[in-house]
Amino acid sequence: MKNSTTIVYQVLCLLFIALSIVLFIRLKNVKKTEIMEPISNKEAVLANIHERKSVRDYIPGKEISKEDLETIVKAGMAAPSGRDARPWEIIVVDQREILDDMGERLPYAKMLKEAPVAIVVCGDTTQSSYWEIDCSAVTENILLAVEALGLGAVWTAAYPYQDRMDVVSENCKLPENIKPLCVIPMGHVKGEYKPKQKYDPSKVHYNQWDTAL
Amino acid sequence: MKNSTTIVYQVLCLLFIALSIVLFIRLKNVKKTEIMEPISNKEAVLANIHERKSVRDYIPGKEISKEDLETIVKAGMAAPSGRDARPWEIIVVDQREILDDMGERLPYAKMLKEAPVAIVVCGDTTQSSYWEIDCSAVTENILLAVEALGLGAVWTAAYPYQDRMDVVSENCKLPENIKPLCVIPMGHVKGEYKPKQKYDPSKVHYNQWDTAL
Repeated sequence: MKNSTTIVYQVLCLLFIALSIVLFIRLKNVKKTEIMEPISNKEAVLANIHERKSVRDYIPGKEISKEDLETIVKAGMAAPSGRDARPWEIIVVDQREILDDMGERLPYAKMLKEAPVAIVVCGDTTQSSYWEIDCSAVTENILLAVEALGLGAVWTAAYPYQDRMDVVSENCKLPENIKPLCVIPMGHVKGEYKPKQKYDPSKVHYNQWDTAL
Repeated sequence: MKNSTTIVYQVLCLLFIALSIVLFIRLKNVKKTEIMEPISNKEAVLANIHERKSVRDYIPGKEISKEDLETIVKAGMAAPSGRDARPWEIIVVDQREILDDMGERLPYAKMLKEAPVAIVVCGDTTQSSYWEIDCSAVTENILLAVEALGLGAVWTAAYPYQDRMDVVSENCKLPENIKPLCVIPMGHVKGEYKPKQKYDPSKVHYNQWDTAL
């Protein structure tokens, strides 16, 4: 009887040793893989701002999902605007002929011919006399959202070049009061892209022009 | 002899049961507090874009650290620019007389009188003929970095208003070719601010103006 009791305790002991080892290993792995990796929201936002780069090559035929496009457009419209006028209008272009024609005729937007989709950021001149300022903030938000989604894009200028604006207006059939600021080709990144380091302390002044920080 | 062996196993068994319980509780707590809270980098970036708001009230006398100011300025300079010209110049203003004078004379920047610091985003007209576009992207990056740091700021326009630009140029002693786009008062948020929801699907068009998404 006593012998069998000892055996029961031996077995129980081994079971709980095994359980302790399993739990200890899980705790260690959890700490390594799931706690150490996520960075704070602050760091994630700042890293994304610094990781954003102009991506000009996209994996052919690989589309951006409707869900991601909506996320990107929504981020754009979260931009601030003067007198809260929100003078922006967004054209999502995925029609091959339009992308190809703009890619052919816009001097720095050849990559449109490879892009599955492009976003044209426009301003309504009846809503603001400096729509291009507000729409630039929209564009930056869009580029940051694209980076956050692991996709790639590049800001190609339409405004202030009248000839380029005409190409976009014609293709997208924009009314007279709607002016295109830029065309943003986007897609799944092909190849390796690294962000530029652009911080230059000589461009920081302290209270007045002649005083460095 | 057998009895004492049984007691040893009983004690060992109890010890490992206790250890298992302790490890189990730690594992549960780790999962709750440290794994569930951090959201993905993608979600953090998008949430920050949507959380950004114009903050016009700051806790009096509470300064922004030099480290945070540097983080904010660096985020600004990570913006894209046409032909990579980087036509921006940044003035960090914390001199009370300058902040007060601009707060007095700029029509929509009264909050400068309460702000511990402001950033003036300027463009060099010799570097770009559309510096205001690039500098608007700089400004949006600055506002997003301020939000990420848990601070508050608001974009108050200088450009395109000549009278406002003159007030800033005079205070910051800007050379003729350096034009101020905006003054961004910032500080520690006083009160409750909620971001606006600005997404408007009627502003999204599909390939051409007349086609809704």
